[in-house]
Amino acid sequence: MRIALDAMGGDYAPATTVEGAVDALSEDKELSVVLVGDDKKIRAELNNRKCDDSRISVQHATQTVEMDESPMNALRRKKDSSIRVAVDLVKDGRADAMVSAGNSGVVMATALMVLGKLPGVERPAIAAVMPTLKDRFVLIDAGANVDCKPIHLYQFAIMGEAYAKLIFGIEKPTIGLLGIGEEDAKGNDLTREALKLIRDSNANFIGNVEGKDIFQGDADVVVCDGFVGNIALKVSEGLAEAMAMMLKKEILEKTRGKIGAYLLKGAFANFKKRTDYAEYGGAPLLGISKPCIISHGRSTSKAIKNAVMVAGAFHSKKIIETISRELNAGLSGRAAFAVKE
Amino acid sequence: MRIALDAMGGDYAPATTVEGAVDALSEDKELSVVLVGDDKKIRAELNNRKCDDSRISVQHATQTVEMDESPMNALRRKKDSSIRVAVDLVKDGRADAMVSAGNSGVVMATALMVLGKLPGVERPAIAAVMPTLKDRFVLIDAGANVDCKPIHLYQFAIMGEAYAKLIFGIEKPTIGLLGIGEEDAKGNDLTREALKLIRDSNANFIGNVEGKDIFQGDADVVVCDGFVGNIALKVSEGLAEAMAMMLKKEILEKTRGKIGAYLLKGAFANFKKRTDYAEYGGAPLLGISKPCIISHGRSTSKAIKNAVMVAGAFHSKKIIETISRELNAGLSGRAAFAVKE
Repeated sequence: MRIALDAMGGDYAPATTVEGAVDALSEDKELSVVLVGDDKKIRAELNNRKCDDSRISVQHATQTVEMDESPMNALRRKKDSSIRVAVDLVKDGRADAMVSAGNSGVVMATALMVLGKLPGVERPAIAAVMPTLKDRFVLIDAGANVDCKPIHLYQFAIMGEAYAKLIFGIEKPTIGLLGIGEEDAKGNDLTREALKLIRDSNANFIGNVEGKDIFQGDADVVVCDGFVGNIALKVSEGLAEAMAMMLKKEILEKTRGKIGAYLLKGAFANFKKRTDYAEYGGAPLLGISKPCIISHGRSTSKAIKNAVMVAGAFHSKKIIETISRELNAGLSGRAAFAVKE
Repeated sequence: MRIALDAMGGDYAPATTVEGAVDALSEDKELSVVLVGDDKKIRAELNNRKCDDSRISVQHATQTVEMDESPMNALRRKKDSSIRVAVDLVKDGRADAMVSAGNSGVVMATALMVLGKLPGVERPAIAAVMPTLKDRFVLIDAGANVDCKPIHLYQFAIMGEAYAKLIFGIEKPTIGLLGIGEEDAKGNDLTREALKLIRDSNANFIGNVEGKDIFQGDADVVVCDGFVGNIALKVSEGLAEAMAMMLKKEILEKTRGKIGAYLLKGAFANFKKRTDYAEYGGAPLLGISKPCIISHGRSTSKAIKNAVMVAGAFHSKKIIETISRELNAGLSGRAAFAVKE
């Protein structure tokens, strides 16, 4: 499998992207990586690491996309950006999947325009993996679509189910709809209508799940619109960081705290690992015709390494083929009608 | 000040409500409390505590509202419920404010029907207080309105500002709109329109704030619709609990962990205090003509005590008068037009 990696994307690129690629190759012998971006800078990073692995190649791109650039601007004026060239490599069949920690709006817009949607998909969505007390769950949509219709949420459920099945290895993942109360009648106009569509599907649907319950791990897939999903994701991220900082401050204020913290070092490290986004690497854009993985702008080399490996698994486990099959098989009467509306 | 307390509301009532009332009276000499509900059960709890404080009285109510009961049903069939009687006491001027940890939907509907909205208010909203690294912020709406228009979010901003001014003692609280990116153009249809209205007001508006930033404490008031707000609140609550459980598990797995945890006991206790919802007591329903405080269904006696004290401050600091003034003074051209639409 060959992964096109946007080497210029992310706050610490290209140092982190090159290092992440090198690390991914040493963990997975089946992988090869095309580093896309400024040829000179990338080769300097490779030389720093004395890397001459033949599975790494470099594809020059003259432009880079800024983190605050509009998708419109990037699509029009940056046809030789590292994002665009990486997507083009996938389109031309010179790579099987692409990964970028760059401007996520631009990655989405470029993937949509160049690679297109899977037949039957109304809106591609971002699927992010988050930790629970038991294991993990897929949050979909984590930010691609800010204004949704019920049919979109229905399709997110079906795409999320297919993805969870393959990455978690669960036969029949449980699906929950993110809401504000368990009863079917609770929610807003959007979720109440979407709930009826998902109830009619073959999915293992457990109904509405509340924000306080998602970390208990009852739902393997949590469905919501991209505005709500992005807020749930960012609130979790912000709170986890704030809690760690508050606890650190409390601990370091006293000597006995310092000794206690020393003794708890291992426990804290394990804990951090369970809640660290970098462990989960990237979030795929589900519903695009080829595998595209979006990583966090603040990605470390570890996050990039994991994202490249997710991209490889995405291709080798034929996740896109599964989504396509499930989506077109799963269209029951009510959902098929909603698509036509 | 006399507070009407729904003594039957909450998962552990009436034990917690009676204890909370007794504790509030011992902390604030200006308060008196009317305990509303099953006369026998309440007096038994008072006897258990050997309480004969003359500032406590009991108002019998023959019915109680279940936690999953619909507001429609409660309004029609439970005209002698502890919630309804507590609200009626405020309406008749026999109490200055009411507190309930019961079914929040029923409390809202009853308050709206019996007490009515403040003139000029389109939709009352729940204002919840949450901790930050620096101090605290007000989240409005935390769950009263699941489908909102831009003018509603604008009014939440003005009401939240007045509330933050008084409870935090800040001259000009900063207001943020909960969104998915800092630029004005980011957000969904609702927030992009609401942003323009709030920009036009006299509020100290800092624009969109992201989920990851709210715990940093830059915004004293965070504005959103009730669906998003309820999810942000519950996700925070669920994650804080899950993190505490994960950390506990990691710590208790090894002996050195146990010693470390013993040494860190004080730090953990301080930390828990900062993140414990019970510290903040209740969330007022802003925009109702009289003070109504909604508490968490899982309220402990400490949470009830704090809610009763918040209710007292709400009345003594004339928060409703301030909201009314600000709301009617703050109507600039664009917002005044939006109200009429």
